[in-house]
Amino acid sequence: MSPRLHPFEPVKDYEIRLASKLVKDAYPAAANVHFVQIDRLDPPKKDMKKYIQAERDGSPLPNIPRILYCYYYTNTLDFNKALVNVSIGHIITKVQLPKGVVGPLLPDDMMEWEEHCNNHPKIQEEIAKLKLPPGYTVRNDPWIYATDDANETRPLCQFFMYVLAGNGHTESNHYSLPLKFSPVFECFTKKFIRMDYLPGGFDATTVPTQPWIPVPAVEYHPDLNGETTMRDVKPLLISQPEGPSFQVTDGNKVTWQGWEFRVSPTSREGFAVYDVWFKGRQVFYRISLSEMTVPYGDPRAPYHRKQAFDLGDCGFGTNGNHLALGCDCLGVIKYMDGMGIHATGEPFIIPNTVCMHEQDDGLLYKHVNYRTNNAVVARKRIFVVQTIATVANYEYIINLKFVTDGSIDIETRATGILSTMPIDPDVKVPWGTVVGPNVMAAYHQHILSFRIDPAIDGHKNTVVYDDAVKLPRDDFNPFGIGFVTDRKYVEKAGHIEQSPFTNRTYKIINENKINPISGSPVGYKVNMPARQMLLADKDSFNSKRAKFATEQIWVTKYRDHELFAAGEFTNQSHSDTGLGEWANGVDDVRNDDIVVWATVGFTHIPRVEDFPVMPVDIHNIQLAPFNFFDKNPALDLPQSNNAFNKSILVGDEKTEKACCKTKI
Amino acid sequence: MSPRLHPFEPVKDYEIRLASKLVKDAYPAAANVHFVQIDRLDPPKKDMKKYIQAERDGSPLPNIPRILYCYYYTNTLDFNKALVNVSIGHIITKVQLPKGVVGPLLPDDMMEWEEHCNNHPKIQEEIAKLKLPPGYTVRNDPWIYATDDANETRPLCQFFMYVLAGNGHTESNHYSLPLKFSPVFECFTKKFIRMDYLPGGFDATTVPTQPWIPVPAVEYHPDLNGETTMRDVKPLLISQPEGPSFQVTDGNKVTWQGWEFRVSPTSREGFAVYDVWFKGRQVFYRISLSEMTVPYGDPRAPYHRKQAFDLGDCGFGTNGNHLALGCDCLGVIKYMDGMGIHATGEPFIIPNTVCMHEQDDGLLYKHVNYRTNNAVVARKRIFVVQTIATVANYEYIINLKFVTDGSIDIETRATGILSTMPIDPDVKVPWGTVVGPNVMAAYHQHILSFRIDPAIDGHKNTVVYDDAVKLPRDDFNPFGIGFVTDRKYVEKAGHIEQSPFTNRTYKIINENKINPISGSPVGYKVNMPARQMLLADKDSFNSKRAKFATEQIWVTKYRDHELFAAGEFTNQSHSDTGLGEWANGVDDVRNDDIVVWATVGFTHIPRVEDFPVMPVDIHNIQLAPFNFFDKNPALDLPQSNNAFNKSILVGDEKTEKACCKTKI
Repeated sequence: MSPRLHPFEPVKDYEIRLASKLVKDAYPAAANVHFVQIDRLDPPKKDMKKYIQAERDGSPLPNIPRILYCYYYTNTLDFNKALVNVSIGHIITKVQLPKGVVGPLLPDDMMEWEEHCNNHPKIQEEIAKLKLPPGYTVRNDPWIYATDDANETRPLCQFFMYVLAGNGHTESNHYSLPLKFSPVFECFTKKFIRMDYLPGGFDATTVPTQPWIPVPAVEYHPDLNGETTMRDVKPLLISQPEGPSFQVTDGNKVTWQGWEFRVSPTSREGFAVYDVWFKGRQVFYRISLSEMTVPYGDPRAPYHRKQAFDLGDCGFGTNGNHLALGCDCLGVIKYMDGMGIHATGEPFIIPNTVCMHEQDDGLLYKHVNYRTNNAVVARKRIFVVQTIATVANYEYIINLKFVTDGSIDIETRATGILSTMPIDPDVKVPWGTVVGPNVMAAYHQHILSFRIDPAIDGHKNTVVYDDAVKLPRDDFNPFGIGFVTDRKYVEKAGHIEQSPFTNRTYKIINENKINPISGSPVGYKVNMPARQMLLADKDSFNSKRAKFATEQIWVTKYRDHELFAAGEFTNQSHSDTGLGEWANGVDDVRNDDIVVWATVGFTHIPRVEDFPVMPVDIHNIQLAPFNFFDKNPALDLPQSNNAFNKSILVGDEKTEKACCKTKI
Repeated sequence: MSPRLHPFEPVKDYEIRLASKLVKDAYPAAANVHFVQIDRLDPPKKDMKKYIQAERDGSPLPNIPRILYCYYYTNTLDFNKALVNVSIGHIITKVQLPKGVVGPLLPDDMMEWEEHCNNHPKIQEEIAKLKLPPGYTVRNDPWIYATDDANETRPLCQFFMYVLAGNGHTESNHYSLPLKFSPVFECFTKKFIRMDYLPGGFDATTVPTQPWIPVPAVEYHPDLNGETTMRDVKPLLISQPEGPSFQVTDGNKVTWQGWEFRVSPTSREGFAVYDVWFKGRQVFYRISLSEMTVPYGDPRAPYHRKQAFDLGDCGFGTNGNHLALGCDCLGVIKYMDGMGIHATGEPFIIPNTVCMHEQDDGLLYKHVNYRTNNAVVARKRIFVVQTIATVANYEYIINLKFVTDGSIDIETRATGILSTMPIDPDVKVPWGTVVGPNVMAAYHQHILSFRIDPAIDGHKNTVVYDDAVKLPRDDFNPFGIGFVTDRKYVEKAGHIEQSPFTNRTYKIINENKINPISGSPVGYKVNMPARQMLLADKDSFNSKRAKFATEQIWVTKYRDHELFAAGEFTNQSHSDTGLGEWANGVDDVRNDDIVVWATVGFTHIPRVEDFPVMPVDIHNIQLAPFNFFDKNPALDLPQSNNAFNKSILVGDEKTEKACCKTKI
């Protein structure tokens, strides 16, 4: 049995061990239980409301059992889910899922299949035809097998094959040298299913494997990239001699500058923040990345099956980076570990998968009285919760930035290596960019869903949207310059269309709580730029599987365990069982417990500069108080001055130098 | 005569003295020459092309005379412009401008008129009716008098009046206590023209001045704002013990991380950057803020005349803040001074009006090979050129951020104090937010134009825009997931409409230079979110005066001295003489010397949190290489590691502390 953990504490190794043991014990040994994901299940909100109230009142805390979900295969290909109460050591339920439901893939398995593929006689046979130069070998990336056949029920995996240059370096960029054959295997049984061949010209024509035409790889690693003169970047050091302004207590509770919340690494989402308060007022119950889909625009088979769901298909936390001190963030850093599992159900720590630190972000506000030249000025300090996941070739950096003015900035940075395709010399295609010799990067989209579970001064909230509209020109508006806002209320679960040209802004308000100054309901606004959504046809699998990717903002009624925008199981899914079902036009969502889903999308037309490793493309959603406080809530920040900030003039750093040199 | 200055060096005090003396000497003493703006005129580009070429070749530099423009009044109300060659000490031309052309206002004059207004018997009479409590006084803000009458030719000024609370503090927030009368004076003659009365209810009804109903001011100054417990923010120090990575040579030439450019503070724009190169390739000839208009949406007179042009009407550099070390930026700072003038033509330094420094901005790129867990990671370093202007109640922070990956981020931060209007208790209006007792902030728009004069590998450039469009579903695209880009070329001077739902992106390309990797023309893309533009009627003065504010992106043919989006003279202008004339649909702009004008607009619906001083609202335009380089140009950055970055874990800062304490 577990000791009494906070319900929002991340899963513990002993909890995973207990759950996996209970599940294994429930089957005969011959069933060969093979786990693919185990993590904590969120507690029911009705219980947590009481718990949070008791926490704030200082009254006795309700006992909320810790429950884990386990995804696992039995008898090789039967996919199951169990819920285990690890507080009392008891399996609540276990079910075998219908044929065709495919679970998330486990990194251990992927690595094994990767090796299996390369060593398979059929693949060896194909490799031989390449007649590679001495020292050159072949590497493959196992890829999620997206859906193109409603009758397919086997769990499959598509392997994209690349030449690994003969430089003997493990970090050579194989993505620069894609090959034109791509085998498909069945997962778990490791059965060879089929060899797909990839086109190299303008159309879908393929040819049998030919000897490889040697071209140099475009390398990103400093040992290989050919950069002989590195830029002279001088150190820029961030120090907090009096310590950081934040505290982490009780395992995962962060207190910083009026903010209070809990951070919990999760296998699927990377992390979630829970129970967010600012200046003693409740603002959000839970915020996290919810799903992501990356469909490619190259129409030719098998590229139409490149549509990964990076959370549901493989786990964003599961693929979280081990963040390194001084590498991924600067200053005084607090790390949290993630938790991974082996197929046996044995847990292991994914070290430093979340990092937290403070940053300066320029000025927060300033006013100068021109009569006296007196300035009032405060700097913008932010608290960053960061995680980074590597999904094969690509990296996503998710930063939740809490700001001293009560706002939250949800930032996505896309980086890593483009997914590449072979292309013949002198060929150009209208759906891709040639980024190196014989290598093309197809146009694609990154569409992320962030799930925002609000609690704006309580759980009964409403989503409204305001358009700024001209007043008619009449006696009341004789000069034709007047404009007002027009407010609409979201009454039923569904989506809202973006409308940038009317300055449409979304607000989550609490109609039961009126701001005494403005006389209007308190709220938070959701700022996000208008973007192109999913380009695929409405009746394509890409669209059917990712309804969330078709609109930018959604509102649903809260229900426990509705966390993932494309549904619980996305791998080879045939349709969306998330927003596609929950945004049903039926549920009442006005003045109710609701969830807001914000879709951040960007159509990525690769540029040569994105290769061999891509400078970050940054996208943001801002949540900001809107008539929530009775004035600027950051007036209690200290004034910015040099007694505090210790800036120096260029040229004066010499005197600093000696001191700092002894310090570092 | 001037010594040989670089043509892009900012104006010198002795140049201003020489020019003003020559101009004064050209008139009889009785003409009473009264200067309002003197600054450097940009040299002709055809000459500068040769100059820049010679600089790079190391050949003898052409002699380009330094020319100053002078705006001044004679005989009290005659407005004139002179061009003076200060290299040889000679007036090139001087002209009296037509009646009705009003020059930018000089801060000295505004301050004088402000006092004059408050002391005027008519205003004293009105103040007496307020029966203010003891110690309470009246303050006024002189306001630009926007246009509502095609026959008006007098230079006018509207004064908004406020109560200054009786706390004896100079920094008390008078904007919190607006009054209901607003006198209009003629500029320079200081003649009282008229008393406007301001409505307090829902409609335009006004009443004679009544005794003031005492309400507390909403204060922003730390001495007054009532915040008794300041937040405990710990110092976050940025040090560069080995000095910054940038150099400033030859007065204003910045060299940093492959970037080379010149920064020149100007009276009107704040600053301009010139002759921008990255990694030895020319990219931009000149970038600057070009104009800004701030129209208000309250339809009632006299608020329809609240439409400031903060560059043309009063000078963004003229109103530039004196930036303070450790206050406005952190780290190792280089400042540049601006130059102001008195009405006599005597110059004075506006100290530290531009600051420059390096910042860390998180990760620039990262890739982890999941097979080996080896990471390649570089941090994003930026070089910030910052200026801040106070335009009466409001502050704008302009940051030009050069990035190590060859991109430039043009950032605007809006802060300061909302422009306020009186409102009666319990009244709500649909065009404003009540932000304090009896004080309302009307909805308004901030619309800024940035002028981008490109030189993408030379001066012959073309603007194109690409839409991402679905492929038809056919044999070629059987799964309905294909998409391509559709490119359009801008052939004639004009604008492009925003189209976020087709992912429309704008590129400035050089059709004469093909990227050897992608096989497409080299270019830079212009990233900007779609925004609502000017809400005022097409036939309103607001629209006629600010054509630039009606569309987000414009292309014109380059001509010397076409720098300001709304034209040279904006104060009380009747129509736009900038883009309204230059974007004429006639000039060829394909493969030509062109200028791109990007409009950043935001409709500002004030929230209570924006008062009494507003947390920054941040808006960005990004210029990024697009198939300009043959790979990621930042591969020559050093890898991010802790030997360099010196981060520490929470808890370990204690050991650091002692050292740092001795240091600071």
